[in-house]
Formats: sequence, C-alpha cells, structure tokens
Amino acid sequence: MDLSGCAVVGIGRTAYTRRSGRTGLALAAEAVRAALDDCGLTAADVDGITCFSTGDSASPLRVAHAIGIDDIGWAVGIHAGGNAVATVIANAAAAVITGQAETVVVYRVLDASVRYGKVTAEVSVGGVEQFAGPHGYLVPPQWFAMWARRHQHVYGSTCEDLGAIAINGRNHAANNPHAIARDPISLDDYLAGRMVVEPFRVFDCAYEVDGAVALVLTTAERAADLRHPAVHPIGAADSTGAGGMPDLWDDQTAMYSRDAAPRLWARTGLSPADIDVACMYDCFTYTIMATFEDYGFCGKGEVGDYFREGRATYGGDVVVNPHGGLLSEGYLHGLNHHYEAVLQLRGQAGARQVPDAELALVTAGAGPYGGAIVYSSRRP
Amino acid sequence: MDLSGCAVVGIGRTAYTRRSGRTGLALAAEAVRAALDDCGLTAADVDGITCFSTGDSASPLRVAHAIGIDDIGWAVGIHAGGNAVATVIANAAAAVITGQAETVVVYRVLDASVRYGKVTAEVSVGGVEQFAGPHGYLVPPQWFAMWARRHQHVYGSTCEDLGAIAINGRNHAANNPHAIARDPISLDDYLAGRMVVEPFRVFDCAYEVDGAVALVLTTAERAADLRHPAVHPIGAADSTGAGGMPDLWDDQTAMYSRDAAPRLWARTGLSPADIDVACMYDCFTYTIMATFEDYGFCGKGEVGDYFREGRATYGGDVVVNPHGGLLSEGYLHGLNHHYEAVLQLRGQAGARQVPDAELALVTAGAGPYGGAIVYSSRRP
Repeated sequence: MDLSGCAVVGIGRTAYTRRSGRTGLALAAEAVRAALDDCGLTAADVDGITCFSTGDSASPLRVAHAIGIDDIGWAVGIHAGGNAVATVIANAAAAVITGQAETVVVYRVLDASVRYGKVTAEVSVGGVEQFAGPHGYLVPPQWFAMWARRHQHVYGSTCEDLGAIAINGRNHAANNPHAIARDPISLDDYLAGRMVVEPFRVFDCAYEVDGAVALVLTTAERAADLRHPAVHPIGAADSTGAGGMPDLWDDQTAMYSRDAAPRLWARTGLSPADIDVACMYDCFTYTIMATFEDYGFCGKGEVGDYFREGRATYGGDVVVNPHGGLLSEGYLHGLNHHYEAVLQLRGQAGARQVPDAELALVTAGAGPYGGAIVYSSRRP
Repeated sequence: MDLSGCAVVGIGRTAYTRRSGRTGLALAAEAVRAALDDCGLTAADVDGITCFSTGDSASPLRVAHAIGIDDIGWAVGIHAGGNAVATVIANAAAAVITGQAETVVVYRVLDASVRYGKVTAEVSVGGVEQFAGPHGYLVPPQWFAMWARRHQHVYGSTCEDLGAIAINGRNHAANNPHAIARDPISLDDYLAGRMVVEPFRVFDCAYEVDGAVALVLTTAERAADLRHPAVHPIGAADSTGAGGMPDLWDDQTAMYSRDAAPRLWARTGLSPADIDVACMYDCFTYTIMATFEDYGFCGKGEVGDYFREGRATYGGDVVVNPHGGLLSEGYLHGLNHHYEAVLQLRGQAGARQVPDAELALVTAGAGPYGGAIVYSSRRP
C-alpha cells in the first residue's frame, strides 16, 4: 500500500462551541473556506468533496454549492459515524491517486441537531435498538460503559486508570486555545465528577459541541507548490472488528482495533515505537484504553500505569492527543484529530508542539468498525 | 486515469419479483454468495464490501457478517441513490488499486420497504421537500415528468419519442428471462398505457421490484486465474451537474451528464462511436433521453428518431439496455446495468448477446449528481 502520492495541504475549522445557533451548512462552509485559505487554493480548484455521517442539510453537494462550486467531479458521502473518519480520508486519497479527482475537500460538521448522548425516539425504535431499548440500553455512553466494565472484570483495570487518561488529555488542552475545556483536573477532581453511567463520570465522555473541520487533499506533485509543508498519509487500515454487533462478540473487550492494528503495522512496516504523536479516537476514555492496547503501545490492563508514568505526554514515549481530543477539545467526530496531526507534523502547534514530530497515528471510531491512518511529514 | 488494474470477476443476483416476502439482508446475502460462486471465490477471499443507499438492515457490515465474514478490512456504505452507482464501483476499484482491499464485493438490494414512487410522510417533511411538498411535488416521477415537459417545450421532443425508448427496452427484455416485464409493446400499447404523471405513462416509469445484485472486483493479476474472462473498468467520471437542486438550474433540461460526459470521454480517449453496449440509467424513459444526448450519441431532440430508426438496437449503432433496463428488467438502482455490461463483455448474454461486444458504457442515476463507467473486455 502506498497512499503517499496524496498529501494533506490545507486545514480549516470553525470555533467549537456548545450552541452556535448556526446551521450545519454554514459551519461546514466556513471550515471548508478556511481550509482552502490555509493552502492558498480556491473553490475553483476543488473537484472532489467528501464527508461522513452528514445528512441532507450539509451533504457534499450542498456544501459544494454553498462555497460556489457548480460542478464537482467526485462527491461521496459515506454513511457511518466516527468509525469511518480514517476510511473517508483513505478513500479520498485513493480518488486522488487514481485520478478521479485532483483536489478533494474532506469535512465533518456537527450542530445541536445531533447529540449522541441524548436518547431520542428515533434511536429507540430502529435497528438493534429495538431489542436493547426496552432495557434502557440506547446510546453510546451506555454501550462503552458496559464494555469498560467488562474490561475491568477481565483485565483488572480501574476507574483511576480511566481517570489517568482523562487527566492527560485535559492537561494537554490547557495549551490549546481552541479547546472547549481547558482547565486541568486532578484525580480528585476526576473522581468527584458527576457519574453519567457507571463507570463513566462526566470526564470520561466526549464534550459534544457545534463546529466543523475540513482538510484539503491533493496530489503530492501539486502539494509541492503550496503554502505549507505537505503531510502524507502513508498507510491506512480498517476492520469490522469481531463481526456483527459488539455485544454479541465472544470478547466484549475487543474493538475493531484488534484486527486493524496488525494490518496497519504490516502495511506500513512501522511499530508503535516509531510514532511521535498519537491522536486516538476518544469518544470515551475507555476508547483510548482499548485501542491503545490493541495498537500495541502497552499490554492489556497496563494503560493506567502507562499514562500515570508520563509516557503518554511530552518527554514520554508518545504524546497522546496533544490537543485534548474529543474529551477536551471537542467532539468533532475525530476529524479534529486529523487536523491536529497535520498541525503537529507541520511543526505549527505552538505551545503544544511535539518536538521533532515526524510520524502521527490517527485512530478512528470504535466498537465494531474503524481504522487508522499514519501520516508522515516526509514522503517515503 | 487508469482503473484497469482492477477487474470485475464475479456477478450474482436474486430473482427480481414484485413481493419477495424476504428481508433485504437475505436478498443481499443471496446475491453476494451467487457472485462469489460465479468466480469461484469464497467469503474467506473477501476483504472489502461496499454498497450505496442501504440502511442498517442490509449495511455492509451486516451483509459481511451474514455471509460468514468476521473481519473485513474495507467496508464503505455510500449515502446516495442510483446517482452513485458508478461512483461506488469506481471507489471500490480505487481501493483495490491502492491496496486497501484485494477483493471487494459491491452490492445493492431493494425490498418492499422502499418504493420510490410512493409518497410517504418521511418524504414530505425532509429537506427541499418541505417547500415542494405543499404543492404536491414529492417523488421522482413528478420531478422527472416536469423536466421531460420542459424538454418537450425547449427541444420539441414528444410523447412518441419517449415511447420509442420504452418500446426498444421492452423488446429487448423479451430475450431476458430474468426481466420482470417481457411482453413486447407497440406504440399503440404505449400510448394506451395508464397516465402516471403527465407526460409519463406507466411504460415510462421504472418497474420497482424486490431483489439484489452483486459484483466481485479484484486485482487484474488475480483476475487472470479466475473462472470467467475479466472485465475491466477503464474510466469513470462523475458530476454534480449544474449545482444545487435541478429545479433551480438555469437549464432544467440539464442533468449531471452534461458535465460528466465530456469528462468521461476526455479521460478515456473514447467517443460514443466506440461503444458497443450502452446500459443507460432509466428510472424513467426521459432519463435515457437526456443522458443519451449529453453523452453525445445524438443531438438535442433527436433521440426519438434515433430509436425509431433502429440505431439503438441490434444491427444499429449501439445497443441500449439489451436487458431491458430498469424499465423492463427491474429497478435494481442501476447495479443490474453493471451486471448486464459484464455479461455482454464476457460474451455470455445468450439470446440477447451483442455481437463482438468489447466496450460498454454504463451510466448512473440522473438529476443533480451522477456519472458513468466504461468497461472493456480487454485491459488496455
């Protein structure tokens, strides 16, 4: 696999706020324009656009039209959640490499019309929820909490271990003016946090916001003439995990990463020791715990110690979520992790810059389906 | 652009019936298994799966699981209708070419839970329909009928011209045992057809059915060892048409094909005269009319004569929809057009075989967004 014929050349975003009062379309258009401004391209240069999980109100066609494009040669909306954020980018890279488009915008927008922690009538009657619903098992915090409990039972992980992950990210966010939550917390603060669904306290759950993020991808050749250093996706992998729905798996502590991780390392020839920055999908602290183990940074049940010993921050082995992640920067469905990876690999992350960052791992989603991308500051 | 590093090696389908009484998942799994049987591969060989416009009940993950796959490395559900059927295949080809997957299944299933000609409460309140709904302008037959009327006004096309398209397809379907409607019709039959929405009679509208279709794509290298001759996608193009919603376009007779067609011919170096078989998306007869003109087979307003003169059938210039298309074989959202193209280029179409078929054009969707693929029986 070689995706490095493609490069991320532009990044853009809106402010992340609790209630913007703005439409998804307006937010998406703002982020896309910002990403184009960032690299010095214009809407006229864009011939591809893609997003995931965005309904009709901010579909690729609507967003293209909103920024002034009347005809676009490649427009793909992928039906999935944060589990697909790596897929969407790898897919866009493949379109660029095979000549289906030269310059592709990838975006994701969230507004107050969707809050994943909220139970709605719609959630309670569709799909597998029709069976889980009568038991009150309806939304992601509940699912992940159940899996986290299982992890505690099988591997002896603790609430304090989850807390170590939350604290690490919140401390990083203190250096990120864009983050919605920037006040560092102690273990006492963490443990005093409001219980949402056991074992998850409020600090274990992603901070849902309004906002949008966009990336601009183009060919490595064209990237050479643009404003910022090119950042190359060099490998990607996905997995549907253990098949079917996680609650039916033989091992409920398994996530997609169990299968995606070995695939990614095999395709790239890299190992966790090579990674400078890890932007780990963190809809919940537990998501980092499970995927961090699967990607091989440490063994099962060892994540708490790893984070407490300072190995997941500056001066340690790998800096995990220097921006604060979904837990502290804001829940932009993981596309903000790609924004951060690009910023770090360009050396433009300011007070939170990871020194000499050359390789970044960005993981996606969680549960039954997801993947990851490795970015490099150099074309291999 | 070169997509020929990929090949379609397997095709499968269920029966097409009005009411199967079966779930979408069961239909999809049957078609996928048939496509794998066709090329001699098994579920264990599949590491990619994709579809479009399929809800949770037959999502790529569910279908993968249903055929016995516990882990799949590339699973993409594209959020779109028949306008994306070429995109989905080009996308799968790009995944194969860039090494994201080696063997990808593409499928589409429709069951009685969705009928596009039916007005539902859901249709009447979402998106642009909230403005069109109060005027009773709600479902595709109404939209396309309006555009067809405009075409009649601007270019002088007639109901008899639409009839010529319907008759051509129905006559072809007489040689297709898989088609839902196989009785040839005369112009008198056509004109006596029940009016659905002016100027569309019942013969102008796709025949909605239950059923599923699947294709298996893999690398050109692996294709060489499989059971049937490989069929190569050699070029693809898409367009979002004139921007925004068609009813807001400056030219309401324009479709995506206005912009996709020149892009396709430029990328492939081909012209309409090179094409042996044209599987044209035909949700309505008018869809063929508008796209056939745009792809350059004839000038504006000339389609009726072209079809009446026998130029769109055996012995003519190009055989259009030898299987009968969506109008007569059944509405499988255009993936059945790809099935037919592969069958023709393999030389396995039996009584309806187009002699010496080497190049097939397959168009997708209509309205504001769509595209096309050219397949070749030889790798260029």
